Amino acid sequence: MGADHARKIDGSISGAEVSAVADFDTDRAKTVAAELKAADVVADGFELIADDSVDAIVVASHDSTHAELVHAALAAGKPVLCEKPLAPTAVECREIIAAQGDRNLITVGFMRRFDPAYNELKRAAAPERIGDTLVAHCVSRNVVAGPGDSAATITNSAIHELDIMPWLLGSPITEVSWHAGRTSKHSGIRQDPQIMLLRTESDVLMTVELFVGARYGYDTRCEIVGEEGVASFAVPAHVIVDRDLKRSIEYPLDWVPRYAEAYRLELQEWVDSIEQNRPSTLADADAGLRAGLVADALVESMNDGGRTVVVEY
Amino acid sequence: MGADHARKIDGSISGAEVSAVADFDTDRAKTVAAELKAADVVADGFELIADDSVDAIVVASHDSTHAELVHAALAAGKPVLCEKPLAPTAVECREIIAAQGDRNLITVGFMRRFDPAYNELKRAAAPERIGDTLVAHCVSRNVVAGPGDSAATITNSAIHELDIMPWLLGSPITEVSWHAGRTSKHSGIRQDPQIMLLRTESDVLMTVELFVGARYGYDTRCEIVGEEGVASFAVPAHVIVDRDLKRSIEYPLDWVPRYAEAYRLELQEWVDSIEQNRPSTLADADAGLRAGLVADALVESMNDGGRTVVVEY
Amino acid sequence: MGADHARKIDGSISGAEVSAVADFDTDRAKTVAAELKAADVVADGFELIADDSVDAIVVASHDSTHAELVHAALAAGKPVLCEKPLAPTAVECREIIAAQGDRNLITVGFMRRFDPAYNELKRAAAPERIGDTLVAHCVSRNVVAGPGDSAATITNSAIHELDIMPWLLGSPITEVSWHAGRTSKHSGIRQDPQIMLLRTESDVLMTVELFVGARYGYDTRCEIVGEEGVASFAVPAHVIVDRDLKRSIEYPLDWVPRYAEAYRLELQEWVDSIEQNRPSTLADADAGLRAGLVADALVESMNDGGRTVVVEY
Amino acid sequence: MGADHARKIDGSISGAEVSAVADFDTDRAKTVAAELKAADVVADGFELIADDSVDAIVVASHDSTHAELVHAALAAGKPVLCEKPLAPTAVECREIIAAQGDRNLITVGFMRRFDPAYNELKRAAAPERIGDTLVAHCVSRNVVAGPGDSAATITNSAIHELDIMPWLLGSPITEVSWHAGRTSKHSGIRQDPQIMLLRTESDVLMTVELFVGARYGYDTRCEIVGEEGVASFAVPAHVIVDRDLKRSIEYPLDWVPRYAEAYRLELQEWVDSIEQNRPSTLADADAGLRAGLVADALVESMNDGGRTVVVEY
Repeated sequence: MGADHARKIDGSISGAEVSAVADFDTDRAKTVAAELKAADVVADGFELIADDSVDAIVVASHDSTHAELVHAALAAGKPVLCEKPLAPTAVECREIIAAQGDRNLITVGFMRRFDPAYNELKRAAAPERIGDTLVAHCVSRNVVAGPGDSAATITNSAIHELDIMPWLLGSPITEVSWHAGRTSKHSGIRQDPQIMLLRTESDVLMTVELFVGARYGYDTRCEIVGEEGVASFAVPAHVIVDRDLKRSIEYPLDWVPRYAEAYRLELQEWVDSIEQNRPSTLADADAGLRAGLVADALVESMNDGGRTVVVEY
Repeated sequence: MGADHARKIDGSISGAEVSAVADFDTDRAKTVAAELKAADVVADGFELIADDSVDAIVVASHDSTHAELVHAALAAGKPVLCEKPLAPTAVECREIIAAQGDRNLITVGFMRRFDPAYNELKRAAAPERIGDTLVAHCVSRNVVAGPGDSAATITNSAIHELDIMPWLLGSPITEVSWHAGRTSKHSGIRQDPQIMLLRTESDVLMTVELFVGARYGYDTRCEIVGEEGVASFAVPAHVIVDRDLKRSIEYPLDWVPRYAEAYRLELQEWVDSIEQNRPSTLADADAGLRAGLVADALVESMNDGGRTVVVEY
Repeated sequence: MGADHARKIDGSISGAEVSAVADFDTDRAKTVAAELKAADVVADGFELIADDSVDAIVVASHDSTHAELVHAALAAGKPVLCEKPLAPTAVECREIIAAQGDRNLITVGFMRRFDPAYNELKRAAAPERIGDTLVAHCVSRNVVAGPGDSAATITNSAIHELDIMPWLLGSPITEVSWHAGRTSKHSGIRQDPQIMLLRTESDVLMTVELFVGARYGYDTRCEIVGEEGVASFAVPAHVIVDRDLKRSIEYPLDWVPRYAEAYRLELQEWVDSIEQNRPSTLADADAGLRAGLVADALVESMNDGGRTVVVEY
Repeated sequence: MGADHARKIDGSISGAEVSAVADFDTDRAKTVAAELKAADVVADGFELIADDSVDAIVVASHDSTHAELVHAALAAGKPVLCEKPLAPTAVECREIIAAQGDRNLITVGFMRRFDPAYNELKRAAAPERIGDTLVAHCVSRNVVAGPGDSAATITNSAIHELDIMPWLLGSPITEVSWHAGRTSKHSGIRQDPQIMLLRTESDVLMTVELFVGARYGYDTRCEIVGEEGVASFAVPAHVIVDRDLKRSIEYPLDWVPRYAEAYRLELQEWVDSIEQNRPSTLADADAGLRAGLVADALVESMNDGGRTVVVEY
């Protein structure tokens, strides 16, 4: 993920260059630096943050290091784009937010907010287009489950729905319940797929199917049902192939091709906002906290037989 | 509905003719009879059942009259195709089933079992095609709500999902819960849309969205998620129109065009089975009872704050 | 084809039964008759036509026998539904038409006129929907080439386009030219695919791609381009399957599933028109002649280097 | 178009900035320069080319000025990206190519070569995927005709197909013919739509429908028919809306949203190739000449009753 960001900043972003990279695995850092135009390799994230040639920091290291690196960036007074999660617990997120004060330095990598499809969906689902939203349905399927248990799939994978749906619907999630039935024998996860019911403050009820071992393809679906109509994602495909008695389009193996443009637009907006010294439209630290709190509530419901849990912000 | 069946039997079914029609509104019966090749008008359903020229009976009268007419057909020993519901309560359904004994005279009009799309979906969702089924998602949307309250929309409209999903998945529904959020201001129903969670004996978890005042079109969707892949309905359309900066297909206003072929195939199978003196593949009285019991459980959940209710067969 | 018609009349058509069948291969006739409710086997088509129990005749025998059987039906004064072609040459078609006089006994099996998709396309392409038609594009692809040369593929296969497009556009084809480039090495046909340019009297220009050895599936496409918009076929599919990194719908192997409903509706209309003693909406003998004349013009263009040929009616 | 390029270079391209702009309309140049980070306004293109701060030039001025500006850039030894056409006549194109010698300074703005959809189509239509290509079908429709006559629509609009199809198919166009029927009363063009038949050296036959006054939307379609299957464009859409008995996706009004990503990728590759001092993958001057020669052959066919014209390179 970090290498990907470095390549994008170096090759596709106007107004920024990668001046230094750090990685726990120094060889990997060297390999990436060698590919780029002008990147130094430094010992670790703290040295990178302290480097005078560095104006802003992207944190895409192991989840367990996010919080301390963000604190270091705050201490240095430098803007930081932190991949989710900001911190492993709500308590630590709140400490980070307190350390930031009113400085607006932290952004969180919820790149879907920059995805052209989500943005068009938001426009299409506006009340003047399909009426007030009543319910919504999300599906998030991966080819192969990553490491971790069912709770980890919520905090790592479903977290994107937990950020983007309030963004789409303009209302925070206030109540959740977790449900599951049969589990795929191909998935290493104890419960896969999982069904979540989410309710917003505006009383929109949502179903979310999270199926991380779905095998057939990487597939993000979203449907917003309004009083006058429905807006939903078209299946993204450039080309149709007719062969062997089938008419087919292809699914990607993972999120990289699906969200490549979102990552680029997110980085460009981040760079522009720093250059122009203005707030960006990226997710802020509060958004990172809110998504984490909803994930915690879902895990609580999972551990308590699917009970409805109210999210306390 | 009755006139529609009469016209289909008269004009599109091999091996049957309409010999008599009856309607509470005698003028309507006369109008329909006049359209058909050889239909008499009789005073009421009981006279029709007693008529010597009548070999088999279609009951498509008001719901409240179904049970007594089916009892009369059983007494006369004639095959009867009864539109759902067989009877308003489970107790009355059980009485009908007892009166039938082992005679196999009753079939119930769950026409989706003959819909080419549901049949192709059943084949496509077979374990050898997409693996064992894990979850399923159904959407049932009408343009305008019919009369009645939220409970009535379950027993009249969602009832089709409650029959077809066990048929599709090969396992009865054993547990349900009912959920709702915002209601459409355009719908006369107190809760519209409604979200139902259903679980089969085989532990498949299903979401069902029922939205009877959805306005935008009559739309039945179904998606079966298996361990290896997913099978779902294509949107049925013969023709695409490009106009006014849009590429569009049309929705029907109601179920009549969507299920016209299903009704024809159901009636043809019913007539063939009577002529060949063999069991038909239509839904039987037990299927009618089972769907009704699931609907009752959903209404119980609705009245009890969305509590999970176990279906007792 | 004949067996298929017999089964449909016997099992799916109201108001008709198969009273006799004949086939050059008597065993095949016996097999089909045994399947049906009440069919006798007779020695040949002439005996069948003469049979008193036979009110109307379907001719689906070898192309070379069509003309003499139709003449026999005319002599007997019985309605006849003849599969295309009515006769191998225009001269013979004209003799048949002369023998018929004003009796309206002959219909030709251009079943696409009854296909729900073509009928919906005709409504969608009406001037009040998409403006006056300007150009049209047709594609006709089969999985495997039948027997015969390029000329035969025009008179046997493209003939359906040559009938249906004037029916769709309300104007006869008056000018044609034939074009080809590379030929598929998998096709036994000398020129496959072929591209035809057709012009109607109303000056609509059409492209037709005929590719009988296209392998990937049976695929009929049609697109009508008007001054205000475009109407075209949706790809017919009930079900979508997601598997193996692909989202797919299936093509049929041949025209049988694609046009099953068209054949049924054609036969029902034919039977109804005979019973009601009224002209049917099936293609008449003149339509059969006209399509044949356009096919002849295309073969003439093919044999003359792609020269534009005017169709003389 | 020039302003668009300037904004893209300034805001979305890594490794380049706009140092000067010139426009016949100086006020427009000032407006654009004011939007950008660091752009000076200079008197005209020649001054801009001579400016020491300018390393490379984009020519997006009136078609009639392209040739002299490209000559000036060649004289200055600076890389130039020239919007099509390079020059109004083949003779002038050849003079430019001669002036360039072996310096590889000129690239032509055939941006479709960078469109992700065309690139995916090229991969999908490879012989190992769908067999050797046999025929192809292109459709190019605009909402409103630009200024000019039918010949101008070929040299300005169809020119993109004339470049991209040889690029896609790996073979130059060697033979063309031009055809037309009814003209839209809404189009100011004498013949609109037009149908072109193109043949490549590899004997692939193509149909191209060019309809510049198609009203319903901006729509580029392309279908490649191979011996084993077919590859074609999916209709590009992020979002589907269900409303008013229709399921719809939207067409853009013009090519700007359809090819925005292609323009960005083209500019990035151009900048990268200059920085890295290597040949780019943009269309070169020879490609500009070849597309122009095919356009000239089509106009010759148009003026000569649709005669087949051989393209002389």
